[in-house]
Amino acid sequence: MVLDIHPPHLLFLGDINNPLDAKTAMGVLEWRPEHCIGQFRLPGCEIDLGLPDLSPAAALEAGARSLLIGVAPLGGEIAPEWMESIRLSLASGLSIVSGLHQRLTAVSGLKSIADAKQLALIDVRVAPDIHQIATGRKRTGKRLLTVGTDCCVGKKYTALAVCKALAKQGVDVTFRATGQTGIMISGSGIPVDAVVSDFVPGVCEYLTPDAGENHWDIIEGQGSLFHPAYAAVTLGLLHGSQPDLMLLCHDPERAAIDGFEAYPIPIISSAIRRYEEAARLTNPVARVAGISLNTAGMNKAQSDKICTEITESTDLPCFDPLKNAIDAMVLDLIS
Amino acid sequence: MVLDIHPPHLLFLGDINNPLDAKTAMGVLEWRPEHCIGQFRLPGCEIDLGLPDLSPAAALEAGARSLLIGVAPLGGEIAPEWMESIRLSLASGLSIVSGLHQRLTAVSGLKSIADAKQLALIDVRVAPDIHQIATGRKRTGKRLLTVGTDCCVGKKYTALAVCKALAKQGVDVTFRATGQTGIMISGSGIPVDAVVSDFVPGVCEYLTPDAGENHWDIIEGQGSLFHPAYAAVTLGLLHGSQPDLMLLCHDPERAAIDGFEAYPIPIISSAIRRYEEAARLTNPVARVAGISLNTAGMNKAQSDKICTEITESTDLPCFDPLKNAIDAMVLDLIS
Repeated sequence: MVLDIHPPHLLFLGDINNPLDAKTAMGVLEWRPEHCIGQFRLPGCEIDLGLPDLSPAAALEAGARSLLIGVAPLGGEIAPEWMESIRLSLASGLSIVSGLHQRLTAVSGLKSIADAKQLALIDVRVAPDIHQIATGRKRTGKRLLTVGTDCCVGKKYTALAVCKALAKQGVDVTFRATGQTGIMISGSGIPVDAVVSDFVPGVCEYLTPDAGENHWDIIEGQGSLFHPAYAAVTLGLLHGSQPDLMLLCHDPERAAIDGFEAYPIPIISSAIRRYEEAARLTNPVARVAGISLNTAGMNKAQSDKICTEITESTDLPCFDPLKNAIDAMVLDLIS
Repeated sequence: MVLDIHPPHLLFLGDINNPLDAKTAMGVLEWRPEHCIGQFRLPGCEIDLGLPDLSPAAALEAGARSLLIGVAPLGGEIAPEWMESIRLSLASGLSIVSGLHQRLTAVSGLKSIADAKQLALIDVRVAPDIHQIATGRKRTGKRLLTVGTDCCVGKKYTALAVCKALAKQGVDVTFRATGQTGIMISGSGIPVDAVVSDFVPGVCEYLTPDAGENHWDIIEGQGSLFHPAYAAVTLGLLHGSQPDLMLLCHDPERAAIDGFEAYPIPIISSAIRRYEEAARLTNPVARVAGISLNTAGMNKAQSDKICTEITESTDLPCFDPLKNAIDAMVLDLIS
């Protein structure tokens, strides 16, 4: 589960203009700024990470070892219009890191170029060869899982921020990555959405094994129970990880599931009830312990106001982990 | 999705003695008796299908074209103690049909023996190469999905029986197999539990495409929302298949999830509520239209009594499709 992802990286953004499609690049930049040398954008790209725009050759010169595909489109295919940039990067001496479902090693011609130049093609989203049916046995140690009202609402950020804050307070914690970006950030983990469906809960049991009674696994959530395409992955992760606590991640400005306009975002009380009901199959004491908001589009006063409103209506702590100091609060969360 | 499974078969049972582990052999025998020539059992096997015990050579003589592995153990691995029987069958001139996760073609040495004798290794539980994220778009045509309080409670039998009864009444129907045994019986379908988790709902959308407004897809269910290992597969199938109607399959004599004694079977009213709530994400009119019981361990009077009790408490039709005549009733179900 530990992976050498050849940092530092040149972050490839293609020609995207929806910030949600850039979540891989943004996540790596936020949590591993020391791994990010520059950005590589194609004409039409409206996303700017604030890094220097570099060609592969200039990035190599500046110390980069790999081109990291920072785009995560729906479906996870390598777009044909990216191929020229990928080939150019290999020709310039950069390895390639990808978190897409489609394997770099399966793209005709890439492997021979990489081999000839002794460069690596690193596919992060490859399921481990673990054919393990879940046992449903309750494991020792404590677990916190982030869950969401949608994709891209802060499940990974919240898990990383809570893990960092708990570690600062001296709590024995381990971050468990379950998606490609989390794996690129932490250097280990399992991409659960790439696992054969029968094995998802079993692989999640494997990912978060028995541990000391005061140890906390902080587990990155995936998808949403309210997502027409990804709820099954979410449920498998929920059942296999057996969380004691869940943090519900939510974007208060979003009305519909991203990319699925006919599907409304659930109200918070209903989401809490559904997650607790589902999680209690494998852990009868599972509960939502707090609400983590992604208020990227709001100023601090607006963000604080909505946090207060949600705390009043749910009687649970509510915070934006990127706007609020959570170091003290996290100890209350797990107590 | 259409597969040549080389009938007729010699049914291999290994040394099992739990009838639930023989569900592949029993299913093929029940629904395709004309495909079943004999049974092949190892010492210790306590299951008897009522077919002649034949060696592979005798089965070939009697007209068999393949050895069908009729056992479905948890995890889906080929047991080492079966290898001698598989090799003997190939040596005797039978192809091999398997519905296990582990591929016959991946077992060292088998492929060269099969190729040398121009025999086939047929792995039924292989996911199609469809990398399709669900769209959540409501499709035309009507759909009925069987769901369950557990595995092995009659989801496949109920779907096959209802499909047959509707066809007899002149309704335009298609049976959609989603598991290895259903595929062996019907000769087509997709093993959804072998599909990468991200694609399960999308593959189910593909399996049950747009159809005429009076056409019914009768879809074989998988697993159970209340199963600690398989609920994720169940939910993906539920969301992707977008059923208008569900039939809840249930074994009234079972107290706990088979093989997971710490997990109780849910009460029927709770199971109905949970399935309807989950299914309405992608089809707001989805409802449970009836209860299908597996009363294999009861006589007709006992079975009728419990069906009446459940009808009284749920206000839904309740029947055992193998004990009750359902030809007339099915038209009411879908009206």
